[in-house]
Amino acid sequence: MAHVVVQNVARADQSVIDGLAQHGVATVHEAQGRRGCLASYLRPIYSGARIAGSAVTISAPPGDNWMVHVAIEQLRPGDILVLAPTSPCDDGYFGDLLATSALARGARGLVIDAGVRDVRDLTEMGFPVWSRAISAQGTVKETLGSVNVPVVCAGVAIEAGDVIVADDDGVVVVRRAEAAEVLAAAEARTANEEAKRLKLAQGMLGLDLYEMRPRLAEKGLKYV
Amino acid sequence: MAHVVVQNVARADQSVIDGLAQHGVATVHEAQGRRGCLASYLRPIYSGARIAGSAVTISAPPGDNWMVHVAIEQLRPGDILVLAPTSPCDDGYFGDLLATSALARGARGLVIDAGVRDVRDLTEMGFPVWSRAISAQGTVKETLGSVNVPVVCAGVAIEAGDVIVADDDGVVVVRRAEAAEVLAAAEARTANEEAKRLKLAQGMLGLDLYEMRPRLAEKGLKYV
Amino acid sequence: MAHVVVQNVARADQSVIDGLAQHGVATVHEAQGRRGCLASYLRPIYSGARIAGSAVTISAPPGDNWMVHVAIEQLRPGDILVLAPTSPCDDGYFGDLLATSALARGARGLVIDAGVRDVRDLTEMGFPVWSRAISAQGTVKETLGSVNVPVVCAGVAIEAGDVIVADDDGVVVVRRAEAAEVLAAAEARTANEEAKRLKLAQGMLGLDLYEMRPRLAEKGLKYV
Amino acid sequence: MAHVVVQNVARADQSVIDGLAQHGVATVHEAQGRRGCLASYLRPIYSGARIAGSAVTISAPPGDNWMVHVAIEQLRPGDILVLAPTSPCDDGYFGDLLATSALARGARGLVIDAGVRDVRDLTEMGFPVWSRAISAQGTVKETLGSVNVPVVCAGVAIEAGDVIVADDDGVVVVRRAEAAEVLAAAEARTANEEAKRLKLAQGMLGLDLYEMRPRLAEKGLKYV
Amino acid sequence: MAHVVVQNVARADQSVIDGLAQHGVATVHEAQGRRGCLASYLRPIYSGARIAGSAVTISAPPGDNWMVHVAIEQLRPGDILVLAPTSPCDDGYFGDLLATSALARGARGLVIDAGVRDVRDLTEMGFPVWSRAISAQGTVKETLGSVNVPVVCAGVAIEAGDVIVADDDGVVVVRRAEAAEVLAAAEARTANEEAKRLKLAQGMLGLDLYEMRPRLAEKGLKYV
Amino acid sequence: MAHVVVQNVARADQSVIDGLAQHGVATVHEAQGRRGCLASYLRPIYSGARIAGSAVTISAPPGDNWMVHVAIEQLRPGDILVLAPTSPCDDGYFGDLLATSALARGARGLVIDAGVRDVRDLTEMGFPVWSRAISAQGTVKETLGSVNVPVVCAGVAIEAGDVIVADDDGVVVVRRAEAAEVLAAAEARTANEEAKRLKLAQGMLGLDLYEMRPRLAEKGLKYV
Repeated sequence: MAHVVVQNVARADQSVIDGLAQHGVATVHEAQGRRGCLASYLRPIYSGARIAGSAVTISAPPGDNWMVHVAIEQLRPGDILVLAPTSPCDDGYFGDLLATSALARGARGLVIDAGVRDVRDLTEMGFPVWSRAISAQGTVKETLGSVNVPVVCAGVAIEAGDVIVADDDGVVVVRRAEAAEVLAAAEARTANEEAKRLKLAQGMLGLDLYEMRPRLAEKGLKYV
Repeated sequence: MAHVVVQNVARADQSVIDGLAQHGVATVHEAQGRRGCLASYLRPIYSGARIAGSAVTISAPPGDNWMVHVAIEQLRPGDILVLAPTSPCDDGYFGDLLATSALARGARGLVIDAGVRDVRDLTEMGFPVWSRAISAQGTVKETLGSVNVPVVCAGVAIEAGDVIVADDDGVVVVRRAEAAEVLAAAEARTANEEAKRLKLAQGMLGLDLYEMRPRLAEKGLKYV
Repeated sequence: MAHVVVQNVARADQSVIDGLAQHGVATVHEAQGRRGCLASYLRPIYSGARIAGSAVTISAPPGDNWMVHVAIEQLRPGDILVLAPTSPCDDGYFGDLLATSALARGARGLVIDAGVRDVRDLTEMGFPVWSRAISAQGTVKETLGSVNVPVVCAGVAIEAGDVIVADDDGVVVVRRAEAAEVLAAAEARTANEEAKRLKLAQGMLGLDLYEMRPRLAEKGLKYV
Repeated sequence: MAHVVVQNVARADQSVIDGLAQHGVATVHEAQGRRGCLASYLRPIYSGARIAGSAVTISAPPGDNWMVHVAIEQLRPGDILVLAPTSPCDDGYFGDLLATSALARGARGLVIDAGVRDVRDLTEMGFPVWSRAISAQGTVKETLGSVNVPVVCAGVAIEAGDVIVADDDGVVVVRRAEAAEVLAAAEARTANEEAKRLKLAQGMLGLDLYEMRPRLAEKGLKYV
Repeated sequence: MAHVVVQNVARADQSVIDGLAQHGVATVHEAQGRRGCLASYLRPIYSGARIAGSAVTISAPPGDNWMVHVAIEQLRPGDILVLAPTSPCDDGYFGDLLATSALARGARGLVIDAGVRDVRDLTEMGFPVWSRAISAQGTVKETLGSVNVPVVCAGVAIEAGDVIVADDDGVVVVRRAEAAEVLAAAEARTANEEAKRLKLAQGMLGLDLYEMRPRLAEKGLKYV
Repeated sequence: MAHVVVQNVARADQSVIDGLAQHGVATVHEAQGRRGCLASYLRPIYSGARIAGSAVTISAPPGDNWMVHVAIEQLRPGDILVLAPTSPCDDGYFGDLLATSALARGARGLVIDAGVRDVRDLTEMGFPVWSRAISAQGTVKETLGSVNVPVVCAGVAIEAGDVIVADDDGVVVVRRAEAAEVLAAAEARTANEEAKRLKLAQGMLGLDLYEMRPRLAEKGLKYV
């Protein structure tokens, strides 16, 4: 198989991307029809980050981070690195030197279905990472992979230029072509939720707010 | 099988419940004969919470949180929601709107052998959750379950009205009928530990404090 | 099999140990040829600790912490307890009383391929632990193990007196006899990294800094 | 906590038990309202066994099989041993000598949320086991547990005298008091399935057999 | 999100598909550049099956097998059902009645990133299944999914009409458009391996057959 | 770190090795004081094999099987290959060509804390493998490892020349220097077990055979 680096990938509109970041992962995921969540084993290395950006994808062999260096050259300000190993691996592909380089290129963070290290440094630098492991185990630079090809990361297919949204709830991907539409749906959803939140805070029950009682009875729920 | 909501469940005495919260999970678990710990994969979404309350139990299908709405109506101030899916599931059954509603009804927290989302909001609201996953993946409202029936949550059988104690060490359940007795045992244990802690802090060895040396020798331990 | 306590284990030079702590796990691991990392499922109970010390090893049966008491007597100031169960176990072998005792003997922390409890207390005491689980489940004191014998902890062979380095990235072991040599290599590596970090921060690419382009081309990487 | 052996446990009618064995796990589970399946990580040590029997339950500490000897005395012909460790453990609690003894007492098999060994011998003896692990790791006989108390085994609450049904699909428990009723429901279900199987084998679609098309359309399924 | 059934999906040439089955999973995977293997947790329910067919894909909610009935109508002789749940689930989505129906429509097997049941019956019927679990836990028919849309199954993106090859080594997917090319590469590889196998069987070392010694020396391998 | 191949490793006496094979894993493990079992996730690719041999150890990078070729040259008749990856990896390091070569050199089998493929061929060849995964995912030949150095495989430290015993219960390692002594202990144990088996088969209880009743009573077991 040819190992390739795809250059000049199309990105979504930056204002749309930034808008998606405001809404967060859970809302965006609902807004696009409950699709696109990466597996829940991806966890942030520190709490409180909420970012969105265009995916620069990396397909890398197990235990080999050579392609990360290649990918960093492809970064544009506002991008997010997305690394998927070609077979399961927990090694620490990424640390403070790579983060320094990625930050210098404008990256907003990393999503990696593998391990990361130097997490104290990354936290101090404010470089957020969502990973399946934290591991000091180093990697080699011997075998090619590819950059900006379609990957499956943590169970979800991602293409270069898709929009990644990540926060304390995890990571969701929005197709580039659907980003504006999803943002609109997220805005509608958020607006709608505010009114509900107020009623619920006042003690109204979801059973009444969502008019669930008749359907529950019809399905056969018994109160005893 | 009939899907039911059991109403008017008996609770333990509130002062007993509050007393158990003071002692924490490890002590309560020891005080009742080293029983009742839920599986260690249940983790708090933030550190530092220490609560106790009466269980309002929820048996829910995988990927379906309809019964949470039903359960919230059954909450009384001081209760804790306990959700067990009928087959393993990591989806995010619970988020900020449900937490708003549960708080309005006086709930102290949630123990869920599944996923939770909106964890940043829940942390800001001070609504503690112990869960097996953090996941933005949403759920549907299509299939009935039951409320306040006996469940097995994270490996432990729990009945509605049992006392749940949860802190950074995890979650333990105390049978409602045994709560007062367990509190007394916990108090005795805590008092007893204080004296030991002082001696250990002064450098006395557990080998001497607990008089272990003869029995170790008898079992055949050799110093070389 | 004889159950033994090996006394008077040789330690590495304390200044070497303290030097290794300065460099942290990832650097030390690289400095010794990318060896010695314990499995990444070992996680710290709180963030920010960075320690090094001589291993006092404990081989313990599942669900039995008797040998921890025996091991504490063998501690010297600056040591780290390292516990490996003889078969997989998540129970909470260690809590605040044992930590009080270990601190009184000068221990710097605990590495345990099992569970720990009282983590709020341990955090307040500043006693760091790297464990595979946090679990309130208590243990018994019925069956012998051994102290200061070779163990395999989280996938790595460790001998008493080996140097343990632990931080937010995990845990690495350095052979006692190699500690000084590894420290020298770590110092060289750290010095070398500083210059690189500066260049990367200024926007220089790793592709150029490490002169990777020719070899990538030779291996067949295509830009499209 | 007192460690007890409950004697003279009530069993279900033997003809009902044998009837349930005929229907197998999947059918029995459906017949009782889709309840009672033990976790799917329990697997048979060999294929083809299909048994039912009354549960003699064992609550045992991790790595300690003393209570198995105690439980064997409580066996009556047609019973099944059900062992749940008090915390997760993969050790081999049971091997050919215990199986020889259990067979001599009329046991039909073992369900164990832990490990088993001597599986070649057990296979030759025709003593079926459903376990979470196969492990040669031996256990000690130092700490008490209990026999014929309620346990949670592989995620399901089981009481002594409940009916266990096990085959290649796994294990299901039927409450003793419900056994006859569940058998009747299983018989009805099996009879009903025969007719459906014939139609499906002739090429009739489930969509038509179960009249699903209108409801699918109503829910919004689109054919494109 | 619209729930859809895509009809009249293009398939690869049947003779190409059958050719791929002859070569098996490992060879096909190598022949297409070491791509396309589904996660190794997918295991066959019985040994010895080796099949290939066109994917009819199913995206299904957790614990809901309604879409399997819909998918069966879309089967053509020689097809393979491929089911991916929208969040992780081990339930038994598929059993003997569905297999009877699928066989009547000409299906060659099922690949499912979830559970299957009635495995004894499926084995007797000769209907092979590769699954992540064997589980009697039944499912409901309440929530829509989609058929013949792109899915990610066990970590790999699959489109309807892609060629699935499965045997005792697991499952690999070949893009429909590449199937003929991959078959040719597999044939070349198999022919090439035969000559090598003969030499290796005669005692020739891979070190010599593949002329590895110079490169090993160059990389620095030392014999001591 | 230097990558080395250690040649001319000492082996145990072949008659001792063959004797250990007769007793099997569980007995050998008990005979040496309940030590040496590899993790239970290592499973045989087919049932019924029972082998023993001298370990030729391989330390290999994740996803790279180059060192297997190097190790095969070091095989002597009766040896067993033991592969430990330097970080967790499920890839299929070993298949039918390597097995052909290993068989030609007299190897008795493979123990691998990673994946294996071509399992149907290996089964037909009668080449037994104990692995953590079956995976068609191929590996590269780019990065050095070492042969016949100490490794940790599936949680146990193994040195080249140690005796490996493997059967359906898993894998155990016996130190080379202790092999004769362990064999003697295994023979004594097996002889002793025969008499016990006969008594147990006749219905005698372990409670009586092992005289457990007084100690159970002393510990406080209550019959109710």
